[in-house]
Amino acid sequence: MDEARILDAVRSPADLKVLTDEELAILAQEIREEMVSVTSRTGGHLASSLGAVEIILAVHSLIDAPKDRFVFDVGHQAYAHKLVTGRLGEFETLRSYGGISGFPKPGESPYDVHPSGHASDSLSVATGLAKARVLSGTDEKVVALIGDAALSGGMAFEALNYMGAEQLPLVVILNDNERSISRNVGALMKHLGYMRTTAEYRDARDSFQELLETSAPLGRAMVRFGKNMKESIKQMVIPHSMMFEQLGIVCTAPVDGHDIAALRETLAVCLAADAPVLMHVVTKKGAGYEPALRDPERFHGVGPFDIATGADAPKKPGPPSYTAVFGEALVREARADDRIVAITAAMEGGTGLKPFAAEFPERFVDVGIAEEQAVAMASGLAIGGKKPVVAIYSTFMQRAIDQMAIDCALPDLDVVFALDRAGIVGEDGPTHHGMFDLVYTRMIPNMRVVAPSDEAELASALRTALALGGPFAIRYPRGAAEGVPVPEDPPVLPVGVSRLLRDGDDVAILAFGCMAPRAVKAARLLAARGIEARVVDMRWVKPMDEEAIRDACDTRLIVTVEAGVIAGGAGEGVCGYLAEMGLDSPVRMLGVPDVFVPQGRADLLVDDLGLSPEGIADAILETLAEQVA
Amino acid sequence: MDEARILDAVRSPADLKVLTDEELAILAQEIREEMVSVTSRTGGHLASSLGAVEIILAVHSLIDAPKDRFVFDVGHQAYAHKLVTGRLGEFETLRSYGGISGFPKPGESPYDVHPSGHASDSLSVATGLAKARVLSGTDEKVVALIGDAALSGGMAFEALNYMGAEQLPLVVILNDNERSISRNVGALMKHLGYMRTTAEYRDARDSFQELLETSAPLGRAMVRFGKNMKESIKQMVIPHSMMFEQLGIVCTAPVDGHDIAALRETLAVCLAADAPVLMHVVTKKGAGYEPALRDPERFHGVGPFDIATGADAPKKPGPPSYTAVFGEALVREARADDRIVAITAAMEGGTGLKPFAAEFPERFVDVGIAEEQAVAMASGLAIGGKKPVVAIYSTFMQRAIDQMAIDCALPDLDVVFALDRAGIVGEDGPTHHGMFDLVYTRMIPNMRVVAPSDEAELASALRTALALGGPFAIRYPRGAAEGVPVPEDPPVLPVGVSRLLRDGDDVAILAFGCMAPRAVKAARLLAARGIEARVVDMRWVKPMDEEAIRDACDTRLIVTVEAGVIAGGAGEGVCGYLAEMGLDSPVRMLGVPDVFVPQGRADLLVDDLGLSPEGIADAILETLAEQVA
Repeated sequence: MDEARILDAVRSPADLKVLTDEELAILAQEIREEMVSVTSRTGGHLASSLGAVEIILAVHSLIDAPKDRFVFDVGHQAYAHKLVTGRLGEFETLRSYGGISGFPKPGESPYDVHPSGHASDSLSVATGLAKARVLSGTDEKVVALIGDAALSGGMAFEALNYMGAEQLPLVVILNDNERSISRNVGALMKHLGYMRTTAEYRDARDSFQELLETSAPLGRAMVRFGKNMKESIKQMVIPHSMMFEQLGIVCTAPVDGHDIAALRETLAVCLAADAPVLMHVVTKKGAGYEPALRDPERFHGVGPFDIATGADAPKKPGPPSYTAVFGEALVREARADDRIVAITAAMEGGTGLKPFAAEFPERFVDVGIAEEQAVAMASGLAIGGKKPVVAIYSTFMQRAIDQMAIDCALPDLDVVFALDRAGIVGEDGPTHHGMFDLVYTRMIPNMRVVAPSDEAELASALRTALALGGPFAIRYPRGAAEGVPVPEDPPVLPVGVSRLLRDGDDVAILAFGCMAPRAVKAARLLAARGIEARVVDMRWVKPMDEEAIRDACDTRLIVTVEAGVIAGGAGEGVCGYLAEMGLDSPVRMLGVPDVFVPQGRADLLVDDLGLSPEGIADAILETLAEQVA
Repeated sequence: MDEARILDAVRSPADLKVLTDEELAILAQEIREEMVSVTSRTGGHLASSLGAVEIILAVHSLIDAPKDRFVFDVGHQAYAHKLVTGRLGEFETLRSYGGISGFPKPGESPYDVHPSGHASDSLSVATGLAKARVLSGTDEKVVALIGDAALSGGMAFEALNYMGAEQLPLVVILNDNERSISRNVGALMKHLGYMRTTAEYRDARDSFQELLETSAPLGRAMVRFGKNMKESIKQMVIPHSMMFEQLGIVCTAPVDGHDIAALRETLAVCLAADAPVLMHVVTKKGAGYEPALRDPERFHGVGPFDIATGADAPKKPGPPSYTAVFGEALVREARADDRIVAITAAMEGGTGLKPFAAEFPERFVDVGIAEEQAVAMASGLAIGGKKPVVAIYSTFMQRAIDQMAIDCALPDLDVVFALDRAGIVGEDGPTHHGMFDLVYTRMIPNMRVVAPSDEAELASALRTALALGGPFAIRYPRGAAEGVPVPEDPPVLPVGVSRLLRDGDDVAILAFGCMAPRAVKAARLLAARGIEARVVDMRWVKPMDEEAIRDACDTRLIVTVEAGVIAGGAGEGVCGYLAEMGLDSPVRMLGVPDVFVPQGRADLLVDDLGLSPEGIADAILETLAEQVA
């Protein structure tokens, strides 16, 4: 460590106030070096955090946190914030089990206002803070930092709409890095700088104008249109900010997000306004680190890498990820059925849809960070005769449960929900674990739900979903699959039929999804202790295999294992089936207890939750021992 | 019935095409008379439907439904659509059990594209339909009709953002009736016509400009601001439409929504454009019926009324509604604690918050139809030291489950969720029943959930929620409470403690919320048959009373009764507790089975679901008989 670093002298944001712009610029560079150095070992959200360094320094040099409130949107921009709020010493532990979080986390620091893990919520939280200030008659500043991609989420618009109407005193800093996670999507993105030069848009307008001019006179409507059109054209030479202005929010012209002096100057005015102000800042994602600048998407969320080249650290060869298997299986299905449309909410890469987008660009839909639009648009596509497949992480689908129920399941439409990252995801922590999908899919009538236990089952589940139609959810975990061959032409799974992985008469383990291979290993451990455990890969979360559940009653103990919350989950579903069938049998439910699961390596978390093979075996031995006692 | 009516000759929308503008205007009046006549007996969403008559006639006279697609947003504008698509003969059965739905309903008619019950989804569905058309290379028209209030929902913005960027061929008709359900909220509303004259907004801008002009020179930022300000002022004299234009959507000037000729003229141009066009139509909610024009809010959703005066049909005297009890209890709490803030999403009246809003206008927040903003803003208020109480219908809270989990429960904030209309709501049907809240609240860690069984319990639950802090949901039904006295100073309920309503050793009925009084009646019926049933008002859905569950095992049968889906619900929760405690006892779960419940009088639906006292008693007798067999 360089003893002369300014960074080492910064104990709290107050220390930033005595620094000159030049010193802050040096500090920014030191912070970048620290971030690159640590994330090259830990992995992390590097590109966004590199882009936001100067913004964060400017904010903390002008406000008085924690009295003043600095709210992050999708906190993976926040590494610089962590470094200047007393967490330099712990920064090495970033995203590790027991270490500091990759996102702002209220319990970790008084400077972390809110857990910022799901996009687009910062402005709503900030309106609440600003309204609280108004009610209390105090004078703390409220600043929210939101990226351009997160602004496409509807709730950000709801918040803008509210703060504009109420004229709440808060500053929204728009970190416009000219790209969402994968690419620019949505009219808003174009609006942020590109509107005037987009040829396609101009052509559409021109042809509409032509239509108007060549039509027969159409009376008042025509006149109105003509007038309007002129105004629109006039408007097209006026810069970007009017959409916000029209919502009652004063908007600055774009500021260079890597120019500390300019940022501080503008922000000081915005803070003084004590009104809803949007400060438009243009940054470069990955700024200050050449490999991240070159490929910001790869460095959005990155694993360990070589600092000099930016190359990924060598990985052990192994099975493909579930995500990749899904993406390839979908391409195969789409070749055979041109009704298939794939939808992502700004996660083209993350959900494995890159091959699909490359081969079927017309049938690939990226709605931006807008899960509600993704799911309700799927409903329209299905009504229009298409077969939409909506691929969204389990945790982000929480944003569109209502649309899943009301727009898709109620009219019983052919919509496939591919819920990636279901279960424990690891380092991204509590906002990102897919803990709830087994519950929220299962509660909805007309839904079918499958949890494949390996990549071959995933391909079969997809085939099944497309073949059967109706609303259908497939949930599968993050990370490497099991290493079994994936059939080119997978079978359609019979509805509600499980598969027996191992026979045994002492105990019946009913395992869901990725817990099945672990249950088999647990059974082997039990066998060594003289306990013969049957292992059933339940496959179907809804409807479940009643016969398998009935048969399980012949053993001394039914054990359910799932990677999700127990409250309302598949294990309780098994209990429900037993009750309905008039059977009573001892049941032990294993899964995520009633807590938010912290961050850390997934295997460590799974151990902690008692869901490793050893944990499962121990729980079974313990329960059997209690029975005897 | 007047034999000479044009309405009687209209068998399908095709018949409208031969009518002149004058005849369509006469038809509009006939439709209004029919709607007023029927809803005066059935109740219904009269005011919105009165306002949209001419729009609907214009659309159906120009498109070819069902090939062309006409999507409604919150279908309670759609009565005229029902009347001209072959449902005049059944219109008398509006909203009744087995009759036609109060909303568009795909199974009911090929002209009903989509179940339109939750606001703001029409534009997303329309983007899906338009995209399907583009992919299929067909030429059907897609028209969506959305009210100004629904436009404040974030997902409408997400859809505008997408359709603008993709230049999808569809026409959005904005039915701007200058009011949401209760009142105009949000900057967008102001934007729709009022922006230029809103003094408060001007003042805020002026003072900001003043600040800029009187500050010391601030370099580039200043210059930018100054420039920007001029543009903003220039923009303020340009009409309303630019926000949409900037999203890539061509927008018409406002059209008189009750002028058939003007509507058809403008719409024809919009349809011909084959590009994303927003047709701005100004209507009067309640148009054509004086009492509804005078008080459109009361006639938004109205019960039977006197046609001549508009007065409500006389009601039997009876207990107050749960909604009213909640509203009054909250006012009492707020008098004692100035940290309490009440939040509604455009349902000031519906959620009982009018007295609160009147007494504490500063502490009353209406975010518009924007449940995500409501809940995430509550999170910010709680961080800012306030005690937000978010009152939203159970079914609409489905829009904000993610915000409940991630923004409120994860950081363990003091947010009270008042879930009104939980359970079976009656005539509004499947989109409006509160079927899922027992599941989606129960699955979230840190949440506490109470289902009060009468109005005194509701007041106690609210007191308890505010006293204990943390995320806390209270769910209660639509309609009249039980008629018990409400304490002025209700007690704080001990956590996880049920109350015994009736003792008995044969059967233990564990009842949740409003099912408890029904369970007591069922127990009386059983007593007449020689079965002594214990009735436990469980009160707490989370955490549950373990002791009561344990004790219930001493009977021959545990029966759980809840007004919500069984899958993942409270009954399965009881099964889970039993499993966890190592107890096995026969359980019969009563609740909503795995179907969407249709519309109809709530008592008929409850009968149908087997949740009446008789149904509960019969189910118990049946299960006991099976045990013996």
